[in-house]
Amino acid sequence: MPTIVVDVMPKSELLDPQGKAVSGAFARLGVTDFSDVRIGKRFELTVDGEVTDEVLAAAEKVAGDVLSNSVIEDVVGIEVVQ
Amino acid sequence: MPTIVVDVMPKSELLDPQGKAVSGAFARLGVTDFSDVRIGKRFELTVDGEVTDEVLAAAEKVAGDVLSNSVIEDVVGIEVVQ
Repeated sequence: MPTIVVDVMPKSELLDPQGKAVSGAFARLGVTDFSDVRIGKRFELTVDGEVTDEVLAAAEKVAGDVLSNSVIEDVVGIEVVQ
Repeated sequence: MPTIVVDVMPKSELLDPQGKAVSGAFARLGVTDFSDVRIGKRFELTVDGEVTDEVLAAAEKVAGDVLSNSVIEDVVGIEVVQ
């Protein structure tokens, strides 16, 4: 069954304390390849049957209304994965 | 600066209570297009300079060791985004 993946990230201008914590862990582990870490959410929506335009529109709507908080987050990707 | 995106999802055989909660919310909102919802994490690792093989190998290592719990999660994607 096809899946629609919705990616949600904290707005770039906001501090991401979880990301900072992971960055700190990297430093303690001697991992120096990454200058910043940001953490968001990945939703996999399973679709029964085909992904029609209506289903994609429904995914976009719930992405904005339910899966993300538009005050602090951005929907950065909506992708159909067969 | 390039970014490496690491996607981590709960193992498919495990119950995803958060996903079930969102599914329930969809039903209450009259959204019937999606038969299941699973929620995972999306990490954006910012790289200073180029993404060399060493940097990619470091991303794969931290993905398995730090960013995911191999008992309950799978790393489902590691992607370089320019």
